[in-house]
Amino acid sequence: MIRLLAAVSAAAVLMAGPVQAQEVDRAAVNRIVDQGFNHSEVMQTAAHLTDRIGGRMTNSPQMRETERWAQERFRDWGLSNVRTEGFEFGRGWSIVQSSARMTSPRPIALRAIPVAWTPGTNGTVSGEVILAPMATPGDLEKWRGKLAGKIVLISAPTVAPDPTEPAFRRLTDAELAERNVYGQPTHNHAATERGVQSSSRDDFPLRLDAFLAEEGALGWIRMAYRDGGLVHGAGYTHHVGRTPTLPGMEIAAEDYRRLVRLSIAGTAPTVEMMSEVRFHDEDINAYNVLADIPGTDRSGEYVMAGAHFDSWVAADGAVDNAAGTAVVMEAARILRTLNVRPKRTIRFALWNGEEQGLFGSLAYVDRHLATRAPLEDPALAALPNNRTWRARWPIQPREGYSDLVAYFNLDNGSGRIRGINAEGNLAAVPVLEDWLEPFASMGATTVSPRSAGGTDHVYLQTVGVPGFQFIQDPLDYSSRLHHSSLDSYDHLKPEDLRQAAVILASVLLSAANSDEPLPRMPLPTRPTDTDPFPFPGGN
Amino acid sequence: MIRLLAAVSAAAVLMAGPVQAQEVDRAAVNRIVDQGFNHSEVMQTAAHLTDRIGGRMTNSPQMRETERWAQERFRDWGLSNVRTEGFEFGRGWSIVQSSARMTSPRPIALRAIPVAWTPGTNGTVSGEVILAPMATPGDLEKWRGKLAGKIVLISAPTVAPDPTEPAFRRLTDAELAERNVYGQPTHNHAATERGVQSSSRDDFPLRLDAFLAEEGALGWIRMAYRDGGLVHGAGYTHHVGRTPTLPGMEIAAEDYRRLVRLSIAGTAPTVEMMSEVRFHDEDINAYNVLADIPGTDRSGEYVMAGAHFDSWVAADGAVDNAAGTAVVMEAARILRTLNVRPKRTIRFALWNGEEQGLFGSLAYVDRHLATRAPLEDPALAALPNNRTWRARWPIQPREGYSDLVAYFNLDNGSGRIRGINAEGNLAAVPVLEDWLEPFASMGATTVSPRSAGGTDHVYLQTVGVPGFQFIQDPLDYSSRLHHSSLDSYDHLKPEDLRQAAVILASVLLSAANSDEPLPRMPLPTRPTDTDPFPFPGGN
Repeated sequence: MIRLLAAVSAAAVLMAGPVQAQEVDRAAVNRIVDQGFNHSEVMQTAAHLTDRIGGRMTNSPQMRETERWAQERFRDWGLSNVRTEGFEFGRGWSIVQSSARMTSPRPIALRAIPVAWTPGTNGTVSGEVILAPMATPGDLEKWRGKLAGKIVLISAPTVAPDPTEPAFRRLTDAELAERNVYGQPTHNHAATERGVQSSSRDDFPLRLDAFLAEEGALGWIRMAYRDGGLVHGAGYTHHVGRTPTLPGMEIAAEDYRRLVRLSIAGTAPTVEMMSEVRFHDEDINAYNVLADIPGTDRSGEYVMAGAHFDSWVAADGAVDNAAGTAVVMEAARILRTLNVRPKRTIRFALWNGEEQGLFGSLAYVDRHLATRAPLEDPALAALPNNRTWRARWPIQPREGYSDLVAYFNLDNGSGRIRGINAEGNLAAVPVLEDWLEPFASMGATTVSPRSAGGTDHVYLQTVGVPGFQFIQDPLDYSSRLHHSSLDSYDHLKPEDLRQAAVILASVLLSAANSDEPLPRMPLPTRPTDTDPFPFPGGN
Repeated sequence: MIRLLAAVSAAAVLMAGPVQAQEVDRAAVNRIVDQGFNHSEVMQTAAHLTDRIGGRMTNSPQMRETERWAQERFRDWGLSNVRTEGFEFGRGWSIVQSSARMTSPRPIALRAIPVAWTPGTNGTVSGEVILAPMATPGDLEKWRGKLAGKIVLISAPTVAPDPTEPAFRRLTDAELAERNVYGQPTHNHAATERGVQSSSRDDFPLRLDAFLAEEGALGWIRMAYRDGGLVHGAGYTHHVGRTPTLPGMEIAAEDYRRLVRLSIAGTAPTVEMMSEVRFHDEDINAYNVLADIPGTDRSGEYVMAGAHFDSWVAADGAVDNAAGTAVVMEAARILRTLNVRPKRTIRFALWNGEEQGLFGSLAYVDRHLATRAPLEDPALAALPNNRTWRARWPIQPREGYSDLVAYFNLDNGSGRIRGINAEGNLAAVPVLEDWLEPFASMGATTVSPRSAGGTDHVYLQTVGVPGFQFIQDPLDYSSRLHHSSLDSYDHLKPEDLRQAAVILASVLLSAANSDEPLPRMPLPTRPTDTDPFPFPGGN
């Protein structure tokens, strides 16, 4: 285990008061290791999520099936209080089938996926393409009068990158050591508040859609942001009343550039788009799935592990995030199978609506832990919770605020656990180190003081609840799998997922049984702007 | 420039007689550099071959168009004696459209391509899959009675490899230096003759097809040999009278493994295959395209550059081998534009039927340079030329045998030229070094004594004519592009192709104007078996 510099550790002790050595139950570790390596079911769980169910877009039929199936599995394993908690998300959307072809100057199939929450083509749509890159509202006017009857190529083509780095890698000791440096938080309230008022991820797509419809375009095509024939298909127009009118597809970068080159060479291609999709409006709520192993004391305190179980649908949502889901479920299975009787309740959470903005975990925070004051401007107050959350002060703790003593998140793919990010909670570092210590020989050596963003622990962090994301080996998550058409079971690593489940189970048990709750950061109050003169040389 | 050890060079001089320093015309080099870098058309040529024409399967309509277009370009540029030379190849085959879907237990599109020269599905074929790996005739019997009404998964699934090496790379100085080691030729006549009698590349596919048809299978699917969602589609049943009866497709490794896992998990999937293909039997000859810059002397001697211009059709045949084709054509354009008047004729050759067995270049060798005695066994004598060529002795030089003084081949993708393989012709090494010397600062530094196989210079080598393949930077040719669905224009490197055209043009001019013809190896006669006791420890 790589430890912090002594001076920093000493400071942490000073700030947080005396921290007891957190004894890990070594006998329990061995039982967990046996169950997790010799009787593992993590890959069976992952296979069902990926091969059998496939892509799990929030509020799609596949996600409804997943919600049912996950509860059933938790019940089969004997978890308690298995339940869903709903929150407003918007429309469901699913692909029945789709394809795209260039039909002139020569016929060729294009690797394509409808962009999420765009309407279908109602048969096929065929038209000449026109390259008209539009990425901001300011780009629209220059194309006025030129798009009628066209299929519009909205992305500016980029040069194909050379893959000179390995797609797949594990963290080196040096890289782990580099994470062992505290990073100061920065604050800029003006920027935060501008962020609230500026466009959300569906504003520009809707404005573009309106412009294209007004101009009489037939549909639009964007370029995949990765090469290698991959497609992704992410889109954000899921809120009720915010569905675009024109079909939009993403095609592989290679296919897109070919269309552009042929256009430039003077033979503007004709393309045929076919997209059969369904909208699902029966229930606009999405559902988190929760399940408990009840604690033996009456404190009401609990520890929690979570992972989002929704995904995109270009493939089967394997590393993002059937991997984390299967590990959380496997940790639940292991601990139930061992019939542990923890002092604190252990809760398992499968979050929904993560891909579109961490909606599920935020709903949990807002409902159970703390809320934040509304904004005064009624237009801003009506925005979705995740758009304004960070700009609203003060934080108002709810009754259960102190009950959740630690939350552990998994959402970095299939790589084994190499440590955990302490999220600036220096007092927690030595405790987390104690809990990880039995697993150093499995590669889990590092408690970093740093923060990790972008997934379901961050809203707990925003209200001062200790929420952590594990450090995992990156493998080929970012290089080719994340959100892509390659994200299928094939690229899951069984050894890594078994390791992660064993470590998660043990850490949860240690946290549930520790004498003292994990040290917390003070309740956040509106911090001081870090930089009063935010321009170069201002400080 | 990396030179051979002095001792080896001295030996080469001894063997071949005095070798004059081969003066390169420096003024011509500058004109070639200017034309090739400041007025290049190599990427326009490559774009037409890839984007506009696309995949160019021998005897397909696309290849017929390419044959016409290439001649037209040569004529536009003022080449002389632009012509085709035909040779018997077999049936043409082209894909109109195709798709494959898993329809149960859930619908999902599969990344698929029909295997070349398999028949279409005549609508769609739908059936349950069965995993029945069959790679040799001995595998067939174990599946008898089990395949009726099924779509047969014929590949044994492999574990997805981790891409821990960069997909794209250039040769290091150390790697180039390693090539500077002579490799002795080895000979084993018994093995060569066994090779003649053993199966060709279409024997097992046809035997498998007959077995599957007899068993009542509906069709078959094989797994792509690369991961990453790529497909390839190579097949070899192009000879007349050797067309299989059942449709066969290749699907992406990830899609294939999903079918296998679902089968193993107890929910054998149903798959729908659709393959609309055409056979083209109007002309079973394929055509090489030849064009000359006539020499000024009357010796009849000529130098030649060539590249195959046929391709597979999973993508647009860009690095294999629009790249080499465009470089050869560009060298022709450069030299014609400069209006060079070489002493010897310079010939440009675009070979056909390379992908199925170097048929085009072999036809040229057999017609113009040398033939080999027929085999006595009439069954063996009836086999295609390329199956028996190496086992037939003696070699019978034709009238033009000595006229071709050097041949230069390009077929290693889009990487720049780093040197040339002397193919064991040690006497030629210092001459080739002289011709390359002006281009050391462009990275072309190495004359290797080694051989390179697998492309259109090898049949010239088999009859003792100096035929060479350039050494090129590998880039991502082998890792992901060669024969794959990613082989489109995007992955061509303009700087590299311009460099290659400049060097090829200059080397051709040097070879055409050199005082002496390039040193040759003696006419091959049946060599001695290298190893009389071919078992471990036998020598």
